[in-house]
Amino acid sequence: MIRAAVLTAPGKLELTSFPESAPPRDGAVLRPTHCGVCGTDPHMYSGHLAVAMPLVMGHEFAGVLEGWGPDFPARDVYGQELRRGDAVVVGTTLSCGSCYYCRFLPQRQNLCQDVNIYGITLGASEPPYVRGGYSDLLYLFPQTWLFKLPPGLSLKLAALADPIACGTRALERAFAPGMPWAGEGIGLGKSVVVQGLGPIGIMTGAAARAMGANPVIGIDRIPMRLEMARRFGFDEVLSLAELPGVGDRVRVVRSLTRGLGADVVVEMVGLPPAFAESLQLVRKGGRVVEFGHFTDNGTTALNPQDIVNLDVDILGSYAYPNAQIGTSLAFLSRYSESYPFEDLVTHTFGEADTEQAIEASRDKLCVKAMVVSES
Amino acid sequence: MIRAAVLTAPGKLELTSFPESAPPRDGAVLRPTHCGVCGTDPHMYSGHLAVAMPLVMGHEFAGVLEGWGPDFPARDVYGQELRRGDAVVVGTTLSCGSCYYCRFLPQRQNLCQDVNIYGITLGASEPPYVRGGYSDLLYLFPQTWLFKLPPGLSLKLAALADPIACGTRALERAFAPGMPWAGEGIGLGKSVVVQGLGPIGIMTGAAARAMGANPVIGIDRIPMRLEMARRFGFDEVLSLAELPGVGDRVRVVRSLTRGLGADVVVEMVGLPPAFAESLQLVRKGGRVVEFGHFTDNGTTALNPQDIVNLDVDILGSYAYPNAQIGTSLAFLSRYSESYPFEDLVTHTFGEADTEQAIEASRDKLCVKAMVVSES
Amino acid sequence: MIRAAVLTAPGKLELTSFPESAPPRDGAVLRPTHCGVCGTDPHMYSGHLAVAMPLVMGHEFAGVLEGWGPDFPARDVYGQELRRGDAVVVGTTLSCGSCYYCRFLPQRQNLCQDVNIYGITLGASEPPYVRGGYSDLLYLFPQTWLFKLPPGLSLKLAALADPIACGTRALERAFAPGMPWAGEGIGLGKSVVVQGLGPIGIMTGAAARAMGANPVIGIDRIPMRLEMARRFGFDEVLSLAELPGVGDRVRVVRSLTRGLGADVVVEMVGLPPAFAESLQLVRKGGRVVEFGHFTDNGTTALNPQDIVNLDVDILGSYAYPNAQIGTSLAFLSRYSESYPFEDLVTHTFGEADTEQAIEASRDKLCVKAMVVSES
Amino acid sequence: MIRAAVLTAPGKLELTSFPESAPPRDGAVLRPTHCGVCGTDPHMYSGHLAVAMPLVMGHEFAGVLEGWGPDFPARDVYGQELRRGDAVVVGTTLSCGSCYYCRFLPQRQNLCQDVNIYGITLGASEPPYVRGGYSDLLYLFPQTWLFKLPPGLSLKLAALADPIACGTRALERAFAPGMPWAGEGIGLGKSVVVQGLGPIGIMTGAAARAMGANPVIGIDRIPMRLEMARRFGFDEVLSLAELPGVGDRVRVVRSLTRGLGADVVVEMVGLPPAFAESLQLVRKGGRVVEFGHFTDNGTTALNPQDIVNLDVDILGSYAYPNAQIGTSLAFLSRYSESYPFEDLVTHTFGEADTEQAIEASRDKLCVKAMVVSES
Repeated sequence: MIRAAVLTAPGKLELTSFPESAPPRDGAVLRPTHCGVCGTDPHMYSGHLAVAMPLVMGHEFAGVLEGWGPDFPARDVYGQELRRGDAVVVGTTLSCGSCYYCRFLPQRQNLCQDVNIYGITLGASEPPYVRGGYSDLLYLFPQTWLFKLPPGLSLKLAALADPIACGTRALERAFAPGMPWAGEGIGLGKSVVVQGLGPIGIMTGAAARAMGANPVIGIDRIPMRLEMARRFGFDEVLSLAELPGVGDRVRVVRSLTRGLGADVVVEMVGLPPAFAESLQLVRKGGRVVEFGHFTDNGTTALNPQDIVNLDVDILGSYAYPNAQIGTSLAFLSRYSESYPFEDLVTHTFGEADTEQAIEASRDKLCVKAMVVSES
Repeated sequence: MIRAAVLTAPGKLELTSFPESAPPRDGAVLRPTHCGVCGTDPHMYSGHLAVAMPLVMGHEFAGVLEGWGPDFPARDVYGQELRRGDAVVVGTTLSCGSCYYCRFLPQRQNLCQDVNIYGITLGASEPPYVRGGYSDLLYLFPQTWLFKLPPGLSLKLAALADPIACGTRALERAFAPGMPWAGEGIGLGKSVVVQGLGPIGIMTGAAARAMGANPVIGIDRIPMRLEMARRFGFDEVLSLAELPGVGDRVRVVRSLTRGLGADVVVEMVGLPPAFAESLQLVRKGGRVVEFGHFTDNGTTALNPQDIVNLDVDILGSYAYPNAQIGTSLAFLSRYSESYPFEDLVTHTFGEADTEQAIEASRDKLCVKAMVVSES
Repeated sequence: MIRAAVLTAPGKLELTSFPESAPPRDGAVLRPTHCGVCGTDPHMYSGHLAVAMPLVMGHEFAGVLEGWGPDFPARDVYGQELRRGDAVVVGTTLSCGSCYYCRFLPQRQNLCQDVNIYGITLGASEPPYVRGGYSDLLYLFPQTWLFKLPPGLSLKLAALADPIACGTRALERAFAPGMPWAGEGIGLGKSVVVQGLGPIGIMTGAAARAMGANPVIGIDRIPMRLEMARRFGFDEVLSLAELPGVGDRVRVVRSLTRGLGADVVVEMVGLPPAFAESLQLVRKGGRVVEFGHFTDNGTTALNPQDIVNLDVDILGSYAYPNAQIGTSLAFLSRYSESYPFEDLVTHTFGEADTEQAIEASRDKLCVKAMVVSES
Repeated sequence: MIRAAVLTAPGKLELTSFPESAPPRDGAVLRPTHCGVCGTDPHMYSGHLAVAMPLVMGHEFAGVLEGWGPDFPARDVYGQELRRGDAVVVGTTLSCGSCYYCRFLPQRQNLCQDVNIYGITLGASEPPYVRGGYSDLLYLFPQTWLFKLPPGLSLKLAALADPIACGTRALERAFAPGMPWAGEGIGLGKSVVVQGLGPIGIMTGAAARAMGANPVIGIDRIPMRLEMARRFGFDEVLSLAELPGVGDRVRVVRSLTRGLGADVVVEMVGLPPAFAESLQLVRKGGRVVEFGHFTDNGTTALNPQDIVNLDVDILGSYAYPNAQIGTSLAFLSRYSESYPFEDLVTHTFGEADTEQAIEASRDKLCVKAMVVSES
């Protein structure tokens, strides 16, 4: 039997057993060992983000390949041969391949009009049932993006690939048009502000630093996060407790950026006033990346004149294309000694405690919560 | 004596005489023959946009060079020698050359932190007094961008260079990152919506068509403008009278764009709800250019989630760098037979009637109003 | 029986009969009505470009859908439902979907490491045999990119979609980084030189003009082509007969571009000295697109200092991703009244005369040769 | 009296005395304390690169402001007030401000058509004579780009700003179009090869690493340089002695890049065969930056088909715009503890030994040679 945490109704997450079955002809079976709690999980759990139920949640997972059917393409996305027992991380998005975006903007397959995502859209009402990471076994489709772990990378760190992909893709939106030699886009010595220092915000700042940004400035209200951000290379962290007024924060950011405002501001709070603040933190001709509002948190008053006067780019970033997981792995491998990735996962939970993990994440009691299999 | 229309107080524009003087050592004297009424002129006139007074207004002018002092560089910006009597159009912005933007982002000299603009910031309280286009003689600084008219181009059309520069620069903001072959940026067959069909809006659509966009769709409420837009190559014009609801307009735009929304939306109305509508008209991964809000017209409610879900670029465009006037002249020369530029100027006024010209523009009684010297 | 022109050995193209079969479960059957002769066809025919034989050649085809098996996805790439008898044009490249380029640079699927192309790599040794356009019936794979013809577009013009895709993709390579407002990339009033005025070169210049380039200058040696280029909107055509020296041509191009050289030069001759000449025709900071050398025509002496001094971008363009066919159709539809596309096809041949068509193309006796079915 | 090393004829560099004069009204006087030997200095010295003589050479200098005339703008390029005794580094290029490039592509002022450069074009035949860094006092023009040293940065390191500007600008050419999330341009985890590990090559690799590149691979033949490159963060260095064949180096680079070739190759050797090799080292769709050939070192055989097949960008990089010095200072400040910048300067010379310094650089006996004032 397979054990999995199943969302059966809003607020109701139950550990359930499912029958184990042989992998389908073109499918594979994975034993997820680590599954991070995403910021959207509490929204699904609470019903704020509607999903089809029953659902085995969990979409930030890494694990071990247990087996596959004869038609499963046993290669990872780089063409590396896969063997039973191999540790892999999974790009959890399945784009349709035939909609307008998949055909004509394939680099933006994150915009696929008929997408499926493990742990979010793939419900548990039909065999083989388990398509989410809060489980001890799950079933993979043949077109799934599998990435064999690079040498030396642990499954725990690999399970951070999804939030790092979110963060790096958001940041990389600000690179266009790629002329840092003319002040256009990110490059050496460009200033970056990250608003909101959850796991994705911290990874974004760490990545910005790793790409040459200077200074990297973080803003949050939770001391544990501010402290963690410092450990991940932020040059300055601004505490909402100490700088409660927007004007205060703007003043500090300007003082760190020759009075101009930041070259790049990445909004990762997800509350409308934070977006309004972005436009005060950025310099003229700079770039604001809006990532935080994955769910609907209402509106803010915007004066479009600010956009005109700033001659600014405001760049939405929605999730990421699967290829970005490759960037995550490159990042984790390169900086595993510079950054304390292990410590980012401040709280781990057993599979039986998935509900607590989600609640701890919801209540912001941890930086990153992760569900880990007892094996 | 020089005659000029002088703003002495909000709502008070007087025809005044100033003493004529020899050109300064490093300056020149221009006889402006045509000066367009810009959409900002009524804002200055009414006091909505604060300016130093007294002020000779008028910043969309072309004219004839009357003479210059011995140290004036008698070449246009392309290095062409200038002679007395030459017809020129003037890039009316004087950037400082030494602020952060002038130094480190010189391609964005429109962001100059210490800018002067003929007819806007250069008041008439000190000799030689006249620095605006609503006059029969004005004085030029040595660093002024002068463009000799291309063969066959009339001074009247040349006076359209400023609004065309505004429009083309706004549109060209949407070209980045320049990969139309991958659906990124403008190219052949990309759909463009222009909201607001004043002179700049119409020129923007005409330019979009001239750059291969298809379809080019315009939205406005004034029949005269809708009709003019059709004459300038718009494929479709949507009348607010006929399609009063946002949802109606969204539906039509989608029906013209494979159900997706437009690749590019350029907001040139300058009213906050129009900006909010932009985000409903654009496709996912598309580009919204916000140009219309040159002045403060208040706020609109924005849900940042829309920006995220759309994975969109929102690009502010503030005025233009002087080099863009070169684009205007290239556009006017190339398409003078395809487009009825003469007819865009629906109303002309004598210098003595400058006030009426501004009021007619304010009251949207014309497409383009222009003050023309009686000589 | 299906009739098809089969390459059985270099220089040997035979009209052969193949048994007709029902469409495979997931395949379709097309009746190609028009198939253009590509510049590479003579290279395959002569053995200069090695291909697996026997081979039904022809990869620039449009035709009518005759039927399909139950698992064939009967929608075109825009999601439009397909019906028997529908006229379609075919994106003839089948990328593998799983190599590095297909996964990590899907916008460059033209670089697929395991590609198949109708009429080039898909041989005729196994059923259903016919996978090329010089035939009266051919078989399509399920993942084939089908484009339903836009209203009013003839199959004959649609068969030009492939060379137009080659040309527009090459030209669009020069748009990056998409800041025409700062002189970076193509935009209104940018000067474009096209070296080599075969069908692709002419289409490239026509597209450049349609995207606002000015002037558009062509260079070739064949009077028929020079004349045709003029009809497709080139502002100037330079005849190698009249301007035999490179220096002569450079002088003329500079005289048309303020003494600077062209903003963009597209090399479509395919002879090494033409590439060397590109670097003399382009301005500093401009863009050279190298497209012509699809086959190996040897080397030229290059001084890398020229690349440094010019601060230039040299951009290779290899074929095109299938999405570019959409651009072709948009172009054909938009400009079918501005440009004499019909006349570009100077010579048509019956299927029985495919060999002559290829030889006429090889000997440059025509602008565009096309094989047309007698039905 | 001012002492300066003057080039009076090819191969003849003499220590000469010039009269000291008060700073001109709008000029300033600088005491250069450190002046690096650029790779072009030996070319000027030998006569390979023609310059007007007599000439005080030296264009990589930092020093102390001694005084200025009343009209000298006593602010650095960031607007910081300057005081006598301030340590500054000088952007040694003076662009004309009025040519086509200065006006229409001001972000490429390195292409200025009427440029002057301290130590290269500004001869010593007229008062105040000394305009080069191999001197103990020199005179500055008012429009000179001065950068006050950031806190903690020594004059010695600041004198590295010029080669770092060369290297980072070259590297930053490869960032366009700024979509690392789609594999287009540089970003986290992109592979970079630097051919030629002189001071600029080493700084380029160090900067690439600092911008997230991985792996960073260097190629050279001189053991001292290879060793230094390792100390500056290169992941792999390939010795021409150990890998004498191009094929060997290609094989190793491919083995480090999933068999594909590098995302970015920067050619900094300046010998034609190195450029030819670039095209073998780069992956399809990648970027080659050609920087090395600042002087004429002859030609290499190029097959343009390689450019087509690779769908590659080849990007020339000529010197740098002055703004790039700001990037250098940001780089030096940020990484002064990560990288052993001091040690890059393997050899220092007194002013009297300037000739030896240039010869040592010519003979590649040092990594970086620098002339240091004895004060």
